[in-house]
Amino acid sequence: MSKFTIAIHGGAGTILKSMLTPELEINYNQGLQEALNAGYAILEQQGTSLDAVVEAVKVLENNELFNAGKGAVFTNEGLHEMDASIMDGSNLMAGAVAGVRNIKNPILLAKEVMLHSGHVILCGNGANEFAKTRQIETASDEYLFNQYRYDQWVDIRDSEFYQLDHKEDNLKSFLEKEKKFGTVGAVALDQHGHIAAATSTGGMTNKRYGRIGDSPIPGSGTYANDHTCAISCTGHGEFFIRAVVAYDVSCLMEYKGLTLKEACDIVVKDKLVKMGGEGGLIAIDRLGNYELSFNSEGMYRGVKTSDGYNQVSIYKD
Amino acid sequence: MSKFTIAIHGGAGTILKSMLTPELEINYNQGLQEALNAGYAILEQQGTSLDAVVEAVKVLENNELFNAGKGAVFTNEGLHEMDASIMDGSNLMAGAVAGVRNIKNPILLAKEVMLHSGHVILCGNGANEFAKTRQIETASDEYLFNQYRYDQWVDIRDSEFYQLDHKEDNLKSFLEKEKKFGTVGAVALDQHGHIAAATSTGGMTNKRYGRIGDSPIPGSGTYANDHTCAISCTGHGEFFIRAVVAYDVSCLMEYKGLTLKEACDIVVKDKLVKMGGEGGLIAIDRLGNYELSFNSEGMYRGVKTSDGYNQVSIYKD
Repeated sequence: MSKFTIAIHGGAGTILKSMLTPELEINYNQGLQEALNAGYAILEQQGTSLDAVVEAVKVLENNELFNAGKGAVFTNEGLHEMDASIMDGSNLMAGAVAGVRNIKNPILLAKEVMLHSGHVILCGNGANEFAKTRQIETASDEYLFNQYRYDQWVDIRDSEFYQLDHKEDNLKSFLEKEKKFGTVGAVALDQHGHIAAATSTGGMTNKRYGRIGDSPIPGSGTYANDHTCAISCTGHGEFFIRAVVAYDVSCLMEYKGLTLKEACDIVVKDKLVKMGGEGGLIAIDRLGNYELSFNSEGMYRGVKTSDGYNQVSIYKD
Repeated sequence: MSKFTIAIHGGAGTILKSMLTPELEINYNQGLQEALNAGYAILEQQGTSLDAVVEAVKVLENNELFNAGKGAVFTNEGLHEMDASIMDGSNLMAGAVAGVRNIKNPILLAKEVMLHSGHVILCGNGANEFAKTRQIETASDEYLFNQYRYDQWVDIRDSEFYQLDHKEDNLKSFLEKEKKFGTVGAVALDQHGHIAAATSTGGMTNKRYGRIGDSPIPGSGTYANDHTCAISCTGHGEFFIRAVVAYDVSCLMEYKGLTLKEACDIVVKDKLVKMGGEGGLIAIDRLGNYELSFNSEGMYRGVKTSDGYNQVSIYKD
């Protein structure tokens, strides 16, 4: 049997043990484990890394603890506008959607874009129209509604503030609260030796002006190439776009000969820090090496390998 | 006086001498020269590369021969949805808009996003809303209307075909016609030693589903970093996104120590060709080296340097 591995994240940010109740911590760990198991089961049955990352992200999208799919934050207009992307390391195919509404699993739509649209990125109403042609499952506002997210939004909707993905340094009142903003993502290596990456997010609370972060941008929030690595990012999206984070890790490996760990360390703990870009990423290569790297207080994360290793974590080690 | 240079493009594709009337050829060359002169004048007066690329792109957007701003192609719905992006090599700041309507100069809006939104990419109606807060000049449908683009669109609007940026291999009837699809862009080095890049496009004729190409994606269609290069791309956007073209050139220079020419040759004439990605790019570094590189039949392009060199071209050499 060839080695296989799946790694996931549920967002990075100012996540401190003091901010989570024991019960909430259990729920987060459980949610992460369920997503790992779902992706792992596909890999175990010799499924593709592409299907595994979709399945893991789908489970996280369906869990309202995470800011993607059910549980997505509210925009300034009181809506949910979601972004997702996927990339297949075996052929460099990619698909993404930005600012879609009332889609149950944006990652499934991103996969359809990759396979059936002839395009890579579809945006807004147009992406929703495409979803209809592919019979993608929709979700009502009621399904997507979450009281906690709603209260967050009501707190700031009349202000000029917006809530960045994983940080809220411009809104004092938020600093007292538990922060569970973010993005979800998965990377996997399958038994056929192929890797893939997927990312999904509800963006930031009270976002306006059709802001797009790094999550739906191949090269920035998501990247996969069998020859180097598969990456899914989470963090302050604007910095991740400017730093072309996911592809930067790949280039450091391909052009400079760095290992996955060396490349991730440089990008996450040096380059992003110097820019002021808070967040992290998960990464895997075709040898089964993996990294769960972040420069923030915490990152919801997990990894499960065919060697029998299984771990979910939230805080810094 | 320090060296300064500006280079521009007006789209790449199947552009053959047999397809342009002598009069049209003169008009294209004139349009390119006007854009070069506008950007060059700013550099000559010790202006910034950022202002120079904006000015050059603005001139190209205002010229209906080019598919950006006035002269933008029609979407499947008979509208103009335009994309633009800009990046400042001195600080890695970037700004972009995707799918904006009735904006006279999308590149000016991209610059406002970079400087005043706190974000990098704004999309669709939201980007138009932001434009209002910055008093960005709008343009009526009448201003943006162009009979030639309209006729192109009418030819195919009821079909399932769409017209890719610079290629139309799936629509026979188009093969007989002059092809002037594309994107416009500029890169510049100023007397302060800083470089910048800007790109703007109307996308592809009959596009639907809110498709976004590489033009508004920092890292793919546009990139600038004083330590490496400034790049503006034009071509079949989907391939340029998957190959993260602009940042790839930068990484080959930074991590592999290649020259600007070597890096451009590998990306445009080897990697993109192997993927099937038709198009080209313009590139500059802080030493004033520049490249106008393409793998298609032609690319509307030009360069003007403080050494007294001035050239506009359309076809392969």
